[in-house]
Amino acid sequence: MSSPSAVWNFASGPARLPDAVLARAGDVLFRRGADGATAIERPFTGTAVRAVLESARERLTQLLEIPANYRVLFLAGGAMQQFSAVPLNLLDPDSDLRTAAYADSGYWSRRAMQEAARFAEVSVIARHDGREALAAPAVGKWHVPTGCAYCHITANETVDGLAYPAWPDTGEVPLVADVTSCFLSAPLDISRFGLLYASAQKNIGPSGMTVVIVREDLLRRPAQSAPSPLCYRLQAEQDGCINTPPVMAIHLAALVFEWIAELGGLSAMAETNRRKAALLYQAIDSSDGFYTAPILVAHRSMTNVRFHLADDSLTERFLIDAEQAGLTNLRGHRHVGGLRASLYNAMPLAGVGALIDFMKEFRQSNG
Amino acid sequence: MSSPSAVWNFASGPARLPDAVLARAGDVLFRRGADGATAIERPFTGTAVRAVLESARERLTQLLEIPANYRVLFLAGGAMQQFSAVPLNLLDPDSDLRTAAYADSGYWSRRAMQEAARFAEVSVIARHDGREALAAPAVGKWHVPTGCAYCHITANETVDGLAYPAWPDTGEVPLVADVTSCFLSAPLDISRFGLLYASAQKNIGPSGMTVVIVREDLLRRPAQSAPSPLCYRLQAEQDGCINTPPVMAIHLAALVFEWIAELGGLSAMAETNRRKAALLYQAIDSSDGFYTAPILVAHRSMTNVRFHLADDSLTERFLIDAEQAGLTNLRGHRHVGGLRASLYNAMPLAGVGALIDFMKEFRQSNG
Repeated sequence: MSSPSAVWNFASGPARLPDAVLARAGDVLFRRGADGATAIERPFTGTAVRAVLESARERLTQLLEIPANYRVLFLAGGAMQQFSAVPLNLLDPDSDLRTAAYADSGYWSRRAMQEAARFAEVSVIARHDGREALAAPAVGKWHVPTGCAYCHITANETVDGLAYPAWPDTGEVPLVADVTSCFLSAPLDISRFGLLYASAQKNIGPSGMTVVIVREDLLRRPAQSAPSPLCYRLQAEQDGCINTPPVMAIHLAALVFEWIAELGGLSAMAETNRRKAALLYQAIDSSDGFYTAPILVAHRSMTNVRFHLADDSLTERFLIDAEQAGLTNLRGHRHVGGLRASLYNAMPLAGVGALIDFMKEFRQSNG
Repeated sequence: MSSPSAVWNFASGPARLPDAVLARAGDVLFRRGADGATAIERPFTGTAVRAVLESARERLTQLLEIPANYRVLFLAGGAMQQFSAVPLNLLDPDSDLRTAAYADSGYWSRRAMQEAARFAEVSVIARHDGREALAAPAVGKWHVPTGCAYCHITANETVDGLAYPAWPDTGEVPLVADVTSCFLSAPLDISRFGLLYASAQKNIGPSGMTVVIVREDLLRRPAQSAPSPLCYRLQAEQDGCINTPPVMAIHLAALVFEWIAELGGLSAMAETNRRKAALLYQAIDSSDGFYTAPILVAHRSMTNVRFHLADDSLTERFLIDAEQAGLTNLRGHRHVGGLRASLYNAMPLAGVGALIDFMKEFRQSNG
């Protein structure tokens, strides 16, 4: 087969970045200015680097309409670092907040609660696997015991392809969400949450940084056992700069935020993302069972479309043929198998169209 | 004054990077390959990213001649993250290793011990400020109580401009060193240490990553309270990939390691670095007291040359005039004041020559 004219990378993260950002990134990061320094050779205490950090924060605040009583932190490391940082910061034994409530919705929420269990008593208050309606308990009617320091959800399960259709009401208990793989894919009502975190390598930019958005009242918790760089209060007091921040990753994130704004912001992103996901799920659902999507319609992820071949023995051939057709990184996570197409903001409709065309051809050849 | 023909950036870190690395960085990181992905858009579990990580590790191992019983980790975050990671990993209450010995040699060793004191009993076993010989106790004759989990030194004090002239013998107690600002400036006998760490933004590359080199026997300590991404054992078991690593920073570090090797390795670096430092200290010492270096000759840092104007009221003028002459970021750290020129590997002799010429002119105009 001849080389395809375009190659579409459906990786779940590190994922495809916007062409416009890649085109500018080299000059932005690696060209020396009049001061003899590139953006990554300057003191982080200086005005130039602080202006970059401030601009990234302002752009993100505008995109998400983050209320004034929230602080935005750009912290080193990935979301897994937050699996421990969240309990280390939010538990408060002095106020009898020793328990953490977790909802189990798939691979990453279980990883998060396993790590939390090293530092907290974990109470699993909801389980769902996407194969039946999120009704035990239904979203909106969770009973979170008072005395819980927080209630944690994984808003979009990257591995399982499952997303929350609505946010639970956890009453006085702050709702904490890992929003890594749905962050910036659509508008988000920040005020529903006590804390959100998202690692960069999906819709934010390259790996190496995690965004934490935290309500100010939660910064008053003591965080006695949190290593200083993981302490939200200390970082908030010093604008995320208690030591040298991951400047490269933050700078590229600022370019991505700018790109999103230029395209019309999060409403525009959501419109395109809904269209992309609808087209792909439609192709799956209309394949007469050749392709199947295991997640109930209401809980399907818009960003991580998980599907299977009814005849699983065709999966390897699908992956090989897809790669030859210029459609890469479609293998499902090893914990669930099958196939997965991640449709982050930087994946244009054309990429989804190419995948759908290939799926039809593959079905015709192998159906 | 007309614009200078070259600008030399003497920042202490994030610091000047090699021209050759900056020239290649954009293509290496931001150009898509035949697979439709740049180096920062690929799954970290895939062969391409693993090959980059492995190549970075191999190059560093060759440069430093790291013995086979050490593991090399590239971890997210800065050296400050290791201030807590070291006690969280190396303390072992079950084996009665509850105490950590620290030598106080300046600003960063005190920051390290303050953080450690949150997790361990800290015993300060040596103090020196660089103004008198390192003789209380002398290097080589430290008494480190048995029962200490480790003994920590800051090999080069970036703020104070002080370096260890030799490594202490700590007997059975593992010597742990923050080598951030002297790492890769000269050959280093790794076998003298139980663990070394260095954040990237001096001689390794841009900020966002820290190198940890740890002797394998220390990986057997329980590390019960270490957040998983900070647990050396877990990271070593998974080649530093328990979650998405900071690929961008590691990739650029690999380019820097290659650049060092091409120039002749660490012996060649050391020869040039010694010459740069000797020239600058010579200019200070031969200024009839106009410039002074507060650190005793034997303890002077080769990488962070700290000096003062005898008439401190001239310091601001020096900084302004220097900047106009194309010599930037010479301000001393706020905790010690005065001036500082950081001469990392990427600072060529020409930059040091330009600084020395300027210092002579400034003295003639203001002496």
